[in-house]
Amino acid sequence: MPHTLETLRADYEELKARGLSLDLTRGKPSAAQLDLSNGLLDLDLSGDHRDGAGTDLRNYGGADGVAEVRAIFSELLGIPVPQLLAGGNASLTFMHDIIVHALLHGVAQGEPWYGQDVAFLCPTPGYDRHFAITEALGIRMIAVPYLADGSLDVPAIAQHLADPSVRGMWLVPQYANPTGSSVDEATARALAALPAAASDFRVFWDNAYAVHHLTAAEPAPLDILRFAAEAGNPDRFFVFASTSKITQAGAGVSFFGSSPANIAWYKMHASVQTIGPDKLSQWRHARFFGDADGVRAHMRRHRALIAPKFAIVERILTERLTGHGSWTTPTGGYFVTLSAPDGTATRAVQLAKEAGIAVTPAGAAFPYGVDPRDSVIRIAPTMPPEADLETAIEALALCVLLAEAELAG
Amino acid sequence: MPHTLETLRADYEELKARGLSLDLTRGKPSAAQLDLSNGLLDLDLSGDHRDGAGTDLRNYGGADGVAEVRAIFSELLGIPVPQLLAGGNASLTFMHDIIVHALLHGVAQGEPWYGQDVAFLCPTPGYDRHFAITEALGIRMIAVPYLADGSLDVPAIAQHLADPSVRGMWLVPQYANPTGSSVDEATARALAALPAAASDFRVFWDNAYAVHHLTAAEPAPLDILRFAAEAGNPDRFFVFASTSKITQAGAGVSFFGSSPANIAWYKMHASVQTIGPDKLSQWRHARFFGDADGVRAHMRRHRALIAPKFAIVERILTERLTGHGSWTTPTGGYFVTLSAPDGTATRAVQLAKEAGIAVTPAGAAFPYGVDPRDSVIRIAPTMPPEADLETAIEALALCVLLAEAELAG
Repeated sequence: MPHTLETLRADYEELKARGLSLDLTRGKPSAAQLDLSNGLLDLDLSGDHRDGAGTDLRNYGGADGVAEVRAIFSELLGIPVPQLLAGGNASLTFMHDIIVHALLHGVAQGEPWYGQDVAFLCPTPGYDRHFAITEALGIRMIAVPYLADGSLDVPAIAQHLADPSVRGMWLVPQYANPTGSSVDEATARALAALPAAASDFRVFWDNAYAVHHLTAAEPAPLDILRFAAEAGNPDRFFVFASTSKITQAGAGVSFFGSSPANIAWYKMHASVQTIGPDKLSQWRHARFFGDADGVRAHMRRHRALIAPKFAIVERILTERLTGHGSWTTPTGGYFVTLSAPDGTATRAVQLAKEAGIAVTPAGAAFPYGVDPRDSVIRIAPTMPPEADLETAIEALALCVLLAEAELAG
Repeated sequence: MPHTLETLRADYEELKARGLSLDLTRGKPSAAQLDLSNGLLDLDLSGDHRDGAGTDLRNYGGADGVAEVRAIFSELLGIPVPQLLAGGNASLTFMHDIIVHALLHGVAQGEPWYGQDVAFLCPTPGYDRHFAITEALGIRMIAVPYLADGSLDVPAIAQHLADPSVRGMWLVPQYANPTGSSVDEATARALAALPAAASDFRVFWDNAYAVHHLTAAEPAPLDILRFAAEAGNPDRFFVFASTSKITQAGAGVSFFGSSPANIAWYKMHASVQTIGPDKLSQWRHARFFGDADGVRAHMRRHRALIAPKFAIVERILTERLTGHGSWTTPTGGYFVTLSAPDGTATRAVQLAKEAGIAVTPAGAAFPYGVDPRDSVIRIAPTMPPEADLETAIEALALCVLLAEAELAG
C-alpha cells in the first residue's frame, strides 16, 4: 500500500501516543561499550606509579605526556613518538587551544590571526563541534560540500586556497563525522601538495576514528606527515586523536601530532597554560592496553557490539525509505548520514522530537547551522540498546515520510 | 669567629668538593606526601562509576564537574556549589584560559581585551607562573611590593585602580607563594570595595593553599565572594583552588569559583573548548576523601611530614644568617622567602648552583624576572628528604654569606 498523507498522519498519531523517549543525538558509547574498559577502573597503581624511565607519575611535570602511551598510539597513528604529544581528556581542547594560540601569537613565524580576516574550509556535512569552535573564535567558515561519492572536492579546495585569508581547514580523514567517508592516499597527497596563498595554511586532521573499524578491513592511517614533508609542506597538518571512543568518553587521553617545528611551537605556548597532563590517567591507559595490539583487539570488541546496530539502521532505512532519500553505509566511525528528500530535514526532526525521539537538529552538521538543502539528518546508533534503536529508526523513517508527504501537500 | 671572605671562600671550596646534587627549586610534594594519597590509586571503580544522581561518569558530559567533589570543596572554600566548578588537573589552566577568554571575548559585557593596553597588578614577590601567563599573553605587569609586615599595600593598589588600563590583579590570599603571608578580612573587604576605573577589574584570587596549614591554627578561608557582593562588586573575584598539593600534584582536580554571572560567562566560552572534565578523576577524589573532614584530616598528615622541614629551614637560617638578611616563618603553604642582603641574591643562587644546589633563579618571583633589590630567594623545603634539606640550606646560607662578603669586597 503506497503511503498517503492520511495514512502517514494516522501512523504518526499512533507513534506519538506511544509516549516514547529515545535519543539518537550524540555519538556516545553505550554502557556495554564502556564496560569493555572497566579494566581501567580496577587497576591498582598504588605500587605502580613510575614510568619506564623511573619518573614518579604522581608528581608535577612531563609536558609531553607519558612515553609508554605515546609509543602505543605512535604505532597506531603512524606518527613518530617525538612528534606525538599525549594530553588531557579531550582532543577538542587541543584543537581549540591551537586556534587560540594562532589568534594570539600567530602560527610559526606568522602574525597573530586576531583582527585579520581568517577563514577555514569546512567540508560539509561535518562535525558540529568543529564549527562551534571556529564560530566562537570569530573565524569565517566556508562550506565545501563533499562530492556525491563522499570524496573531497579537491578542485574547489584548490580554488579556495588561492585566497590568502584561508588559513585552515577542518577534516576528519577517516570514517568522517557524519558521512563515514575516508580520504584516500591520492587525495591526502593532493591536500599536502596544493599551493596555498597563506604560507601558514593548516589542515586540522582530526583522526578521531583512526581505529574505529566496523568491518574486518582495518586500514592503517594515511602517513599524512610524511606526505606533507615529501610535498615540501612539512608543517601543514595538525593531527588529532583520542581514546574518547576507545575507553571512557569523558576520561580518556588525547593526542596531538605534527611536524617537529609545530610541536615545538605548540609546547612553547602550552608551557604557560599547564605544568603537564594527568600522567596517571595516561599510565592507566598504557597498562590497560599493554601495546598497540591490545588496542586493536579492544576495538574488535567494540565492533562486535556496534556493527549490529549499524546493520539495524541500514536494514530499516532500506525497508522504509528506499526511494525517499539516501543514506551512508559506513565501514567505521560513529554515524550514519541520512539525506532525506530536500526540504524535509527540519520538519522530520521536529516531528521526531514531538514523538519523543531526540535527533541532532537539522543543519547541525553545517557551518552556522545552515544546510542549504535542508536534507541531512545525522544518526548516532551506538548509545541506545538495539530494541530502542529499532524503534527510534522506524519512527524517524516515518517522520521523514510524513515530512515529505506534507511538503508534497 | 666572624666570617671573613677568606674563610668563607675556603668553606665554599670544601662545599663544592662534596659534589652535591640537591634541588630546592619547585614547590613539589615529596614522595612520602604523595604516598598519603595512594588510596586514590587502588580504588576499584569498576562497579562504582555513577554519581549520586545516577549519571554514568565514564561517558561524555557534565561540564560543571562531579557534584560530590564540588560539595566537599564548597565547604572547604566557602563557595556555594552552584558557583564552584570542578575542572581538569591544573587550576593554572583555568587562570590562563580565563585571561584568554577576556582577551578574545571580553569580560562580562566589556570589549575584548586584545589590542588594548591591559595591565595587571602583581603583589611582589609573587608566583612566577602567574607572571609567565600575563607576560605570554601580552599583559603589562605592575609590581606592587608587599609591605614590610607582609601585608598588601592597599593605598598603592587604590591608586593604581584609578588607571582604567588596570583590569586585573594576581593574588594568593592565604599562605602566599612565596611570602607565606595571608590577607586579613579588613584587607579583603578593602579589595572588594575599592573604586576601580575599569568596570571589569578582576582579582585572580588563587587560593592554592586554602587548607595547607603548617600549625594547629586552621583558619577558614575568607568569604571573599560575600564581601564582594556586600561591597556592590559581586563579579570582582575569580577564585581558584586545586588538589595539586593535596593529593597528586600532576593528577588532581582544579576548582573555579565566582559570582553566578561570572560562572555563566566562563561556561559559555568553555563549552566550545571541552565536553567536560575527567569525571572519573573527580569521582576518585570524592570517594577517597568522603567529606570535607576527610580533606582536613588528610592535610594534617601532610603537616606532620612537612612542618619539620620548615622548622629545619627556620633553625638553620637563624643559626647561619642572623644579621645577614631576613626570612619568613610561614604558618602554611609551601615556601620560605629568604631576603638576602641587597644585591646578593643573583650571586648567591649562582654560587649555590655551582656547588650543586638548584635554587629558583633570583628574580623569578618578580614580573619580568626583575627583583629591584636583588634580594629575594625562594626556598621550597617540601621535596627533599630532611637530611638533604639540611645540607642544602646550610650550603645556601654559606653562599649568601659569601656573596655578601664578596660584595663588601
